[in-house]
Amino acid sequence: MRRFVAERAERLITRIVSHSSSHSHSPSSSYSRYPFLASSQIQSLFLFSSSPSTSMGSSSESPHPVTLTNINPKVLECQYAVRGEIVTQAERLQEQLKRNPESLPFDEILYCNIGNPQSLGQQPITFFREVLALCDHPNLLDKSETGKLFSGDSIQRASQILSQIPGRATGAYSHSQGIKGLRETIAAGIEARDGFPANANDIFLTDGASPGVHMMMQLLLGSQQDGILCPIPQYPLYSASIALHGGTLVPYYLDEATGWGLEIAELKNQLETARSNGITVRALVVINPGNPTGQVLAEENQRQIVDFCKKEGLVLLADEVYQENVYVPDKEFHSFKKIARSMGYGEKDIHLVSFQSVSKGYYGECGKRGGYMEVTGFGSEVREQIYKVASVNLCSNITGQILASLIMSPPKVGDESYDAYCAERDGILSSLARRAKTLEAAFNNLEGVTCNKAEGAMYLFPRLHLPQKAIKAAEAEKVAPDAFYARRLLQETGIVVVPGSGFRQVPGTWHFRCTILPQEDKIPAIVDRLTNFHKKFMNEFRD
Amino acid sequence: MRRFVAERAERLITRIVSHSSSHSHSPSSSYSRYPFLASSQIQSLFLFSSSPSTSMGSSSESPHPVTLTNINPKVLECQYAVRGEIVTQAERLQEQLKRNPESLPFDEILYCNIGNPQSLGQQPITFFREVLALCDHPNLLDKSETGKLFSGDSIQRASQILSQIPGRATGAYSHSQGIKGLRETIAAGIEARDGFPANANDIFLTDGASPGVHMMMQLLLGSQQDGILCPIPQYPLYSASIALHGGTLVPYYLDEATGWGLEIAELKNQLETARSNGITVRALVVINPGNPTGQVLAEENQRQIVDFCKKEGLVLLADEVYQENVYVPDKEFHSFKKIARSMGYGEKDIHLVSFQSVSKGYYGECGKRGGYMEVTGFGSEVREQIYKVASVNLCSNITGQILASLIMSPPKVGDESYDAYCAERDGILSSLARRAKTLEAAFNNLEGVTCNKAEGAMYLFPRLHLPQKAIKAAEAEKVAPDAFYARRLLQETGIVVVPGSGFRQVPGTWHFRCTILPQEDKIPAIVDRLTNFHKKFMNEFRD
Repeated sequence: MRRFVAERAERLITRIVSHSSSHSHSPSSSYSRYPFLASSQIQSLFLFSSSPSTSMGSSSESPHPVTLTNINPKVLECQYAVRGEIVTQAERLQEQLKRNPESLPFDEILYCNIGNPQSLGQQPITFFREVLALCDHPNLLDKSETGKLFSGDSIQRASQILSQIPGRATGAYSHSQGIKGLRETIAAGIEARDGFPANANDIFLTDGASPGVHMMMQLLLGSQQDGILCPIPQYPLYSASIALHGGTLVPYYLDEATGWGLEIAELKNQLETARSNGITVRALVVINPGNPTGQVLAEENQRQIVDFCKKEGLVLLADEVYQENVYVPDKEFHSFKKIARSMGYGEKDIHLVSFQSVSKGYYGECGKRGGYMEVTGFGSEVREQIYKVASVNLCSNITGQILASLIMSPPKVGDESYDAYCAERDGILSSLARRAKTLEAAFNNLEGVTCNKAEGAMYLFPRLHLPQKAIKAAEAEKVAPDAFYARRLLQETGIVVVPGSGFRQVPGTWHFRCTILPQEDKIPAIVDRLTNFHKKFMNEFRD
Repeated sequence: MRRFVAERAERLITRIVSHSSSHSHSPSSSYSRYPFLASSQIQSLFLFSSSPSTSMGSSSESPHPVTLTNINPKVLECQYAVRGEIVTQAERLQEQLKRNPESLPFDEILYCNIGNPQSLGQQPITFFREVLALCDHPNLLDKSETGKLFSGDSIQRASQILSQIPGRATGAYSHSQGIKGLRETIAAGIEARDGFPANANDIFLTDGASPGVHMMMQLLLGSQQDGILCPIPQYPLYSASIALHGGTLVPYYLDEATGWGLEIAELKNQLETARSNGITVRALVVINPGNPTGQVLAEENQRQIVDFCKKEGLVLLADEVYQENVYVPDKEFHSFKKIARSMGYGEKDIHLVSFQSVSKGYYGECGKRGGYMEVTGFGSEVREQIYKVASVNLCSNITGQILASLIMSPPKVGDESYDAYCAERDGILSSLARRAKTLEAAFNNLEGVTCNKAEGAMYLFPRLHLPQKAIKAAEAEKVAPDAFYARRLLQETGIVVVPGSGFRQVPGTWHFRCTILPQEDKIPAIVDRLTNFHKKFMNEFRD
């Protein structure tokens, strides 16, 4: 049976890879062109066929009207490495540690694979949580003891928010774009940030940024002939969403040599190649600050990007979820809307969608699933279609909606919580900056590793210059070399990172993404474990 | 310009309708076969072209790289009447009332279009909200005042839940299926309900039931050749999701004459017709208790359905979100899993997905977006694919996850909150039963209206036997006759109902869906307004 499943998986992979390669626009071999597919997909398919049988029973014994051969091929094609095979393996090791703590050469799994700050000990901002608790249980506002447990401004803010919700009903579906009053607060926050007007009608509150991205992909992608320009390396939400919606990812490569610079010439080149292949390119994705690359775009570069989109008629999809995460004094976050407006471009000049999330920044409230997209420049007919798709899912969760309004309108000077809020916020951000610097230096100290400056976001994306012997060993195990490295790193240190092949990268280069999120007191031990592992690895595979 | 837009909309509609009619399997004219498309789509497209211009500017003045002609046609095709044109109109009237309260013949809009209990004044269950507030702000658990504000068992439950969350971090992304401990609580709740084992690994926590339904449609629908058997009338999430995922809705008609009975002969007939048209039918959707029809399936009927799915190799998609909403003593809710297991069928015999939500029942927590699907019978390879799709969106919101665990494990005898909890729950459910009965009787008292017994769920679906003159007047306005009736009802009474054409129905019959959710003290006035309106309407259009 095993052999049968393995053979079927092989056939499927062949089908998937040959299908996928028709999307490609960079001239290279099928394997190196799709290191991502060719590695993680092979791994995961084989993984399924050999995983311990669950309560579901095995495929030889049941009629199985639903099998890998007859599900939606777009689902098979989609990959999301941030929670992929390496994480499954980490979870298995964690279970093993629980059962038998002495059985592994480390005593805990360190999840550096995902931007999930509170899972690594970051504490939530007190003011935000006070307001959420009061909105969840508004009866508290009538009790005298509440004044002893909550800050005055959290009580005031919760009362104000409840007054904006029809019937004070935090348990009711809201307007499909989100509660109007909260959207007005967010629009005011955007105005204060940018110095240009924002409109509550342009805000769509979402369960984190991801559903917003999916919604736009669903709108723009009608067939494989519709393409989206995406940075490479990219956050794999984009490749996954494009695959699920049946479009074509048109890659543009960030230039590692210039600190992951975004070159307009490269955009033009890739756009033209795609067009000559019959692809209608609909949008350009820009992630700023960058994920996984951590760069912060220069203002002048942003202006060029805006002009490019305007000239080429592309929707600019601006992933701006790391807008609070800038760690270097010479760089500053500017929203693309601010850039466009400061160039004199209004609604009629550019289609622009900005994504924001409560999961990142100093707040790091990933579990609350809050966020919004600001949709500007679209005609009212198309906007109604976006609204319709939002309405099929009724609305995003109200707790996340409230939190999205809070991050765009935190305590102000004079508010009771202001000093505590600032101390919490600045403590988190300055610590993140220190951690980024320490890890960056540690990576650059390793033999055969180069790592760009972490200007922003929550990640480092060091490049691995691996010895040929290691590359051969990876090939023998049918995994990408960086996946091979990451797997070894996990097995020997408990540190979980995501192989660069999960984000795509220039063919023949190898990287991994590591978050800067472990708490500061753990960083020295991580650096030690990583350094020792790397030395051992290089010694083992030195050519 | 107006004329241009209108003409373009006309062309689009022609394209959409001709495209859609290739999906159809019931022999009738293109118009009556797609009353839903032919009415609301026409209306809404024209509505967009005539709606007041927003900040976006009008299409004649901007380059508009994104227009109705080049967006994903599946998005255009999708319709969701529950929040469709009639609701947009209601919102406009509500704004008008706010500005000028004397300008309309009523003083408030009554939203009977959607199952949104707390928007109409239903109060949340205190225990649930206490637990949520404590989990949102766990610092409260360390303060002595908390004991005066919260019940002892809510404190205990919150502590227990926090201990199940790694690092007590309610702000962290969880496992993509949801927090393990909460899934275990839910599985235990299912076991207690059904008397058969449930497995935490089979539970996928979701932001309400809708994302779970989308996930299954995404998995099963690879092309237009893949079909899903759906009841007609149906909750339009199903038609919308099938349209968005590019599959084919294979209708089976519920029999209004036998209280919206589900006949196996009809299922077989429609399945065979679909197959002879080259459709591979992948799944059967059953909504029990029914939406919009309110019927509760008999046990024997459920056994036949299970056998049908087993024999035909169909996935049974069981929408069981109204499992607590049964109002008649001679009917009882049985989950399909319980039915299947009681017939001796195990994992290997049937693929079954059960959807549950925190939005319905006596809890009615729509805004919290919590829910789960229990996925059984699938092979581990396919289950890994479902997991992968779930992981692209990281996880559902933690507040909703906690609430989903609470509704499946409410206070028990002996708990401090038990009596208060029972009083709140029973108060809501018995009031809903009274409201259902009163409204049912009121509808049956109207000339030319017949209304089946509301056995369960939150809706009545009365049938309108309209005079020919009314039907002609509707045709003149290019709307379905029931949409015409609903629009008039809104304009004259402020009551919002959803036209039956939004749910699809036997061609040539007309209905509307009305929730039973307005608070009890408002019901007499609603009955009055409705009765007076109906008399006037019938007099106006009497043949």
